[in-house]
Amino acid sequence: MTYCVGMRIDKGLVFMSDTRTNAGIDNVSTFKKMFAWSTPGERVIVIQTAGNLATTQAVISLLEERMKAPADRNPGILEVPTMFQVAKLVGDTLKEVVAAQSGQGPVADSAFSATIIVGGQIAGSEPRLFLVYPEGNFIEASDETPYFQIGETKYGRPILLRGYEPQMDFTDTVKLLMLSFESTLRANLSVGMPLDLLTYEADSLTLGQERRITSDDTYFQAIAEAWSDSIKASIKALPDYKF
Amino acid sequence: MTYCVGMRIDKGLVFMSDTRTNAGIDNVSTFKKMFAWSTPGERVIVIQTAGNLATTQAVISLLEERMKAPADRNPGILEVPTMFQVAKLVGDTLKEVVAAQSGQGPVADSAFSATIIVGGQIAGSEPRLFLVYPEGNFIEASDETPYFQIGETKYGRPILLRGYEPQMDFTDTVKLLMLSFESTLRANLSVGMPLDLLTYEADSLTLGQERRITSDDTYFQAIAEAWSDSIKASIKALPDYKF
Repeated sequence: MTYCVGMRIDKGLVFMSDTRTNAGIDNVSTFKKMFAWSTPGERVIVIQTAGNLATTQAVISLLEERMKAPADRNPGILEVPTMFQVAKLVGDTLKEVVAAQSGQGPVADSAFSATIIVGGQIAGSEPRLFLVYPEGNFIEASDETPYFQIGETKYGRPILLRGYEPQMDFTDTVKLLMLSFESTLRANLSVGMPLDLLTYEADSLTLGQERRITSDDTYFQAIAEAWSDSIKASIKALPDYKF
Repeated sequence: MTYCVGMRIDKGLVFMSDTRTNAGIDNVSTFKKMFAWSTPGERVIVIQTAGNLATTQAVISLLEERMKAPADRNPGILEVPTMFQVAKLVGDTLKEVVAAQSGQGPVADSAFSATIIVGGQIAGSEPRLFLVYPEGNFIEASDETPYFQIGETKYGRPILLRGYEPQMDFTDTVKLLMLSFESTLRANLSVGMPLDLLTYEADSLTLGQERRITSDDTYFQAIAEAWSDSIKASIKALPDYKF
């Protein structure tokens, strides 16, 4: 499994992904699920992936090959004029990879499907955030739904629903995301450290902070512990139920 | 879907269940999923059900019929000598119902399966809590795993993992469970109000407080709101992330 969140705030975009992949519980590995490209001053594109690892790696490889080979360059995600076109290209590439895999040769028990978050900004337009479905079609984040989760989304959802505010700055957003990830890590072995973090400041048109948060990260450990204490104290502080 | 929790604390047992059932999102109804029986002074038995409603209702009906018809009375859950035997009887009844339904006549898309929490106490023994799997076998709660969740369990799990303490009294436990249910209700339409609540005080051998918490319950509304504020305040109070 996997847990990734792409979040839109007034100040820009924040992405966090875990790195655990597993085929059964006895075949666990660490793979990056967050990928970023930029043409500084012109565009920044970030992709997060969940689902079949062979599929998601093939999608990323194809997108990269098409950036590099001049003949293949158009269309490429560094060439198309809008983030909508970037999302469409990612969706089409996903469909292409799954179609090439399906209906021939050995068939796996698990589906070849994948779900992808695409975010970024291209000069002349706002930062945008998309969720690409396994079918290749996609939706865009809005003021009502300003973030997308993919993978093992349920454990970490309540805190996002309660804590999210569009006015948050980057440090608050990273804190909220870390708490959402910590809730998930605590409950589910299929999501694991380290975490990848990436911020993008609106209109900067260049990648922001990129961090890998490992299990010995002192900040992460500190807020994980403080959060448990804080939850217990908050519960105690609420009025008691009267029978 | 459904969300039920059966929880063991030092002081006894606490059960909470939602009441929403749905067959697709356009066929939503309210059904009780918590059932209790007692022979005051001798035994108390509580059952919570998740899964196929026809299956769970048939299990409850069979258990009740066998209590009432004298000829059928042995074995009955009001007759067997231990809670282990009660859990076994519930598991066997579940297997019997599913077997009677399977392999003949029309086949549904959804499975006939169900998962059941069984808790209670019989004079001469401790309060005990069991989780009966769809296959009819079961496990018992322990100090390491002092509560069971069935149905839509993920959204409400992180707060239980953080907030549970065996020393909690009944009012704290109800508060914790309400927060776990509120987190679930907020994130998922398949779990719905009203909620059924039942407490059992260890060694009382009689049913404790029984309540139906409706959506206009002022306490529930108050803590739901206070909790969101408290979460936001707690997030702010944690140290900021430094890039």
